[in-house]
Amino acid sequence: MSSSLEERLQAVEDHLAIMNLLAAYGPAADAADSEAIAELWHPEGSYTVDAVTMVGDEVPALVEWDAHRDYLAAGCAHVLSTPRVTLQGDRAHAVNHSIVLRHDGNEWAAVRVSANRWELERVAGSWKVRHRTARLLNGSGEARDLLRGIDLEP
Amino acid sequence: MSSSLEERLQAVEDHLAIMNLLAAYGPAADAADSEAIAELWHPEGSYTVDAVTMVGDEVPALVEWDAHRDYLAAGCAHVLSTPRVTLQGDRAHAVNHSIVLRHDGNEWAAVRVSANRWELERVAGSWKVRHRTARLLNGSGEARDLLRGIDLEP
Amino acid sequence: MSSSLEERLQAVEDHLAIMNLLAAYGPAADAADSEAIAELWHPEGSYTVDAVTMVGDEVPALVEWDAHRDYLAAGCAHVLSTPRVTLQGDRAHAVNHSIVLRHDGNEWAAVRVSANRWELERVAGSWKVRHRTARLLNGSGEARDLLRGIDLEP
Repeated sequence: MSSSLEERLQAVEDHLAIMNLLAAYGPAADAADSEAIAELWHPEGSYTVDAVTMVGDEVPALVEWDAHRDYLAAGCAHVLSTPRVTLQGDRAHAVNHSIVLRHDGNEWAAVRVSANRWELERVAGSWKVRHRTARLLNGSGEARDLLRGIDLEP
Repeated sequence: MSSSLEERLQAVEDHLAIMNLLAAYGPAADAADSEAIAELWHPEGSYTVDAVTMVGDEVPALVEWDAHRDYLAAGCAHVLSTPRVTLQGDRAHAVNHSIVLRHDGNEWAAVRVSANRWELERVAGSWKVRHRTARLLNGSGEARDLLRGIDLEP
Repeated sequence: MSSSLEERLQAVEDHLAIMNLLAAYGPAADAADSEAIAELWHPEGSYTVDAVTMVGDEVPALVEWDAHRDYLAAGCAHVLSTPRVTLQGDRAHAVNHSIVLRHDGNEWAAVRVSANRWELERVAGSWKVRHRTARLLNGSGEARDLLRGIDLEP
């Protein structure tokens, strides 16, 4: 590899910073911590889940949705799997799974299981989410396309 | 960033060492491998789960609990999500989710889903768990406080 | 530590490359992307799941199995937990959990939960899977032996 040690170290730091960024989403969602969610996203970033796209301030406001309040009242965990990270300079993308577990009596049920693609951008030295797409793994072809990286770049 | 390459590399190694440390817990718990659990904790470390705090030798002895034996006889998986890691020199903390899946007929049920906070310390060059707190995500405010980092430091 | 900065950096890169390699399996399986699975394995690599061992081209062909087609039609997620990675030069092994979640009405059921051990090898600069063993965590001693690292090396 012809990269300098410094360049290689930077790539490793970027990879871990992105893992930490994504690992912060679940705890923030489960605590309804809209400020923590706002910290993760680019100010003009967006999040498409099912048929809805949230932009900018709408992203952290998702903790106020009725469905989200219902999850929190019951007890919930937004669990994300280890992302596959691809770096491209000041841009990156990552693919992983997300699971929403909802407390129900003595057990937790997996009420949402989604394929996720994250478009990331380094802004003033910090990685931020530019766009997240989550699609339910319910047998639809759209979620499989996302996992193959089809039909996502505008 | 003004840190030296060596300092930056050390931070990256610390982050990965902590990920590996936490990734060793689930397999050790599922194998009832008390020696492997003892290796992860500081000799004076502790683990608070629900209303119980185990200290020192009591931590690896958790594999002898009736509930743990019952999980193992049925078949179980202690699955931990990727931690969000925050380094502070020879100390660090990490936040993640843990899920206990218990075999039941042809499927596995999520019988425990918890928010976790890990206080870590470097001892003689190796990262060890100083304290782990796990709180069930069952709708209680305590688990949400843990995820926000409230009310944990003594 | 007496290793050079370059050696230490290489180890960190190896660790992250292996995490990325394993993180690519779930999305490839859920998309029935046999080419992506083939990319992960060594050409002569193998995969033992339950009582079956697939070798070489048989590994990516697993997406054609009836059970796999059934999962995909219903909607499924192959979720892998963060691996505990142990490096040994151009060889490595990793241990983690895998969960297959299958869509069923409004929820997803965990229909397979396994202990996994991955034997990895660096080939022409890229990490590849030499052998994966997955054993159901259904109370059998074999899965616990795998997690303890017993009875695996030939």
